[in-house]
Amino acid sequence: MAIPVESFFLPQGGSGTLQQRIRQMVAEGILSGRFRAGEKMPSSRGLAEHLGVSRITVTLAYTELVSSDYLTSRGRSGYFVSEGVPVQPAFRPAPRAAGTVDWEAVTGRRFSGMERVERPEDWRGFPYPFIYGQADPALFDHQNWRLCALQALGRREFETLTADRYESDDPMLIEYILRNILPRRGIDARPDEVLVTMGAQNALWLAAQVLLRPGGHAVVENPGYPGFRAMVAQAGARVTPVPVDEGGLVVEALPGGVDVVFTTASHQSPTNATMPVARREALLRAAEERGFIVVEDDYEFEMSFLKPVSPSVKSLDTGGRVVHAGSFSKSLFPGLRLGWLVGPAPFIREARALRAQVLRHPPGHVQRTAAYFLSLGHYDALVNRMKAAFRKRRQAMEEAIAEHGLKVAGQGGFGGSSFWMEAPGAVDTEALALRLRGQGVLIEPGRVFFHPGTERRNFYRLAYSSIPLGKIPEGIALVARAMREV
Amino acid sequence: MAIPVESFFLPQGGSGTLQQRIRQMVAEGILSGRFRAGEKMPSSRGLAEHLGVSRITVTLAYTELVSSDYLTSRGRSGYFVSEGVPVQPAFRPAPRAAGTVDWEAVTGRRFSGMERVERPEDWRGFPYPFIYGQADPALFDHQNWRLCALQALGRREFETLTADRYESDDPMLIEYILRNILPRRGIDARPDEVLVTMGAQNALWLAAQVLLRPGGHAVVENPGYPGFRAMVAQAGARVTPVPVDEGGLVVEALPGGVDVVFTTASHQSPTNATMPVARREALLRAAEERGFIVVEDDYEFEMSFLKPVSPSVKSLDTGGRVVHAGSFSKSLFPGLRLGWLVGPAPFIREARALRAQVLRHPPGHVQRTAAYFLSLGHYDALVNRMKAAFRKRRQAMEEAIAEHGLKVAGQGGFGGSSFWMEAPGAVDTEALALRLRGQGVLIEPGRVFFHPGTERRNFYRLAYSSIPLGKIPEGIALVARAMREV
Repeated sequence: MAIPVESFFLPQGGSGTLQQRIRQMVAEGILSGRFRAGEKMPSSRGLAEHLGVSRITVTLAYTELVSSDYLTSRGRSGYFVSEGVPVQPAFRPAPRAAGTVDWEAVTGRRFSGMERVERPEDWRGFPYPFIYGQADPALFDHQNWRLCALQALGRREFETLTADRYESDDPMLIEYILRNILPRRGIDARPDEVLVTMGAQNALWLAAQVLLRPGGHAVVENPGYPGFRAMVAQAGARVTPVPVDEGGLVVEALPGGVDVVFTTASHQSPTNATMPVARREALLRAAEERGFIVVEDDYEFEMSFLKPVSPSVKSLDTGGRVVHAGSFSKSLFPGLRLGWLVGPAPFIREARALRAQVLRHPPGHVQRTAAYFLSLGHYDALVNRMKAAFRKRRQAMEEAIAEHGLKVAGQGGFGGSSFWMEAPGAVDTEALALRLRGQGVLIEPGRVFFHPGTERRNFYRLAYSSIPLGKIPEGIALVARAMREV
Repeated sequence: MAIPVESFFLPQGGSGTLQQRIRQMVAEGILSGRFRAGEKMPSSRGLAEHLGVSRITVTLAYTELVSSDYLTSRGRSGYFVSEGVPVQPAFRPAPRAAGTVDWEAVTGRRFSGMERVERPEDWRGFPYPFIYGQADPALFDHQNWRLCALQALGRREFETLTADRYESDDPMLIEYILRNILPRRGIDARPDEVLVTMGAQNALWLAAQVLLRPGGHAVVENPGYPGFRAMVAQAGARVTPVPVDEGGLVVEALPGGVDVVFTTASHQSPTNATMPVARREALLRAAEERGFIVVEDDYEFEMSFLKPVSPSVKSLDTGGRVVHAGSFSKSLFPGLRLGWLVGPAPFIREARALRAQVLRHPPGHVQRTAAYFLSLGHYDALVNRMKAAFRKRRQAMEEAIAEHGLKVAGQGGFGGSSFWMEAPGAVDTEALALRLRGQGVLIEPGRVFFHPGTERRNFYRLAYSSIPLGKIPEGIALVARAMREV
């Protein structure tokens, strides 16, 4: 039986070339069971006319479908749906019943309660996105990333791409991190002291699970990155928030009986404060005397365009008490999911074993692509480009903020990509953000950075990593106007 | 100051083109601080002669180094190390001391004790690799994978590549899984009932953490996949091993008070047993009556080349008590790290939130590349190719095993990629494997599949997913000879 040409509709708005879309259309019809084994396809001429495309496009699509065994060519008789196509099984799914499980009780909603900075998925459609940590297509070197990815897909890289590595990381990426990234943070590490992770999030999560046990005790900065609280909770440990001032975490305020202290010393999140060296030394002395471990989240250190970045806490660590986490999410892009964890070898051994249990390893191709991008110098070029752009944007932010009389609560001394802002006490920045969203402006309300019970509703974050320079003055003007109106 | 040409050495055995290796060599010298800002590079002619390469290669490398800002061109004066190059910071790492932390006590070696099937990293160098679950370059469609990866790196895919998705998966991949993969397993699911994971390992780990709490109780098959034990332990739950017979998990042997039962019903690991439908129904009745959840690891269902695969346990699940995990690791390649989890929406919501906490999301580019490879039909063509090859290899295995009088303990009725073998009672297959390794033969000793305290040392696994057809007779002959000798 011949399949009528009218059965074919090219899906609207599909991606890929016309030829690929024709292949997808035919494959989809076969897989869904609409076209069956042995049925005759329309002639290439007939289908081409029906779809309004050139005949050669259809012929090429058919040829590809033959080589992937969806179609069979019988010479002049034309093309037929192959006998070898996947057939939908005869069994039908069980009917859906209401189900007898009380899933709320089974899961206890243990994980979905976590708070975080919210951001609409379609944020690129907003003209004034003062949002944090996303890649900027105007700065990213997409062309060279493609070339590096292609190189990492070469024949000789088959093992790198496909291998099932439980334990080891890409040696080329490890080499670059050890020889070029860590020395910029003052860290001298050996291969067994480094682990590649799925971004800093994964690095910090692994550190929390290895270092904390049920009944353990962790300190987090307040305000601070909300993810830390969830990680500590998953380890079954309790958490104490410790205040932050213009020098970062207040070391004198640390409680007793602590196992782990999480800190963003070089660039406090969200206040941008940098911890002075004397306070870092005090933190390490306290760690030594009271026997706790310091976990340093060293995010965004590359964005130091006003003065050189301060050395990491890890670089001062003579007692081997510091675990250091970093990532390429800010300097390359967050969808990459690549970061690292540095610590003493026995710690890294456990983190590596846990990583194997949870996910085995970050995909080999992703690691190797990054290794090429780094070692060919594209990473440094990109960071330089970002620093130059961010410097200008920061200048524009400062001017606009001053002009409109908004109050900066923390902006850091060396660069970064955001300002921590304080609105008048009566302003609820979540309501403010909602109002601004309607005007095309995205800001980040500050409440989620505060520990539950200590929330302050009048803080917010304004990032300049994704907003074009020219949009800054008007965006800040809109923020200021909305502030007066609420 | 000019840098003497003798300072340059092309690293031996590097990868990439000559031009890229020259760029890496120069970049590395600059980053390591050997070449400093303002220093003059050798002339392209001089460096080309020194390295024994063509001058145009050096010129092109220099040009690229200028565009990534490592070098500056001063017209006829030549090339100089840029002023903008990253400088190693002045601070030096703290001296390494012995450290004061007892890391064994801090970490408790909680994760590194996990047992698993061991495999040498250089297994491809062995002529007779009877090892399980690795990609076969003779069957994999590397060329089309490259093309799909390239398409997923297109300009219009920038958001897919770079985006920071906490919660959502690639809609194109989800669509394909829902419409084409799950129906083959008799499963009809909605988008909020599916989660993309970092392979089946990650899917099962997430399920264990969501469904089990400290003090909970899980059942695993014995013998069975060793990873389950570690996942249950990490959730703080206790585990009861339940025996397996030729129909898989023995449902009558289930203990009371169970929260979760892990099963590989369609294709028991490692015995290859398929659970009959009547027993599946008994399992689901028991789940309903006693209130436990079934986690189904539905690995390798594609490799059914002798008869059609049996429907999944999930397809019989009217009570909403089954969580289903699968992956592309066996059908595509394990280094991809892509799998899925199917279950009731409230369960998936928690698994998704936990995934966000642990690693955020699988890299967007990996998801989109797989989506193209699947939807263009390359996946089905690959699976067909694998099935045809595995059928022949299985035949050769059966003949050689019969010829040499080895004993099969389980091989399954529909296909798969391995045989579960039983050696005479006195044979320790770990010693046997070690002996065979010296002869270029890799087999997998069976001890790790047994629950601690119930180990049997005379079982082993022989897989045929990576060994070439022609090597099978001789490989089996070597196994049989070594068996007689020990």
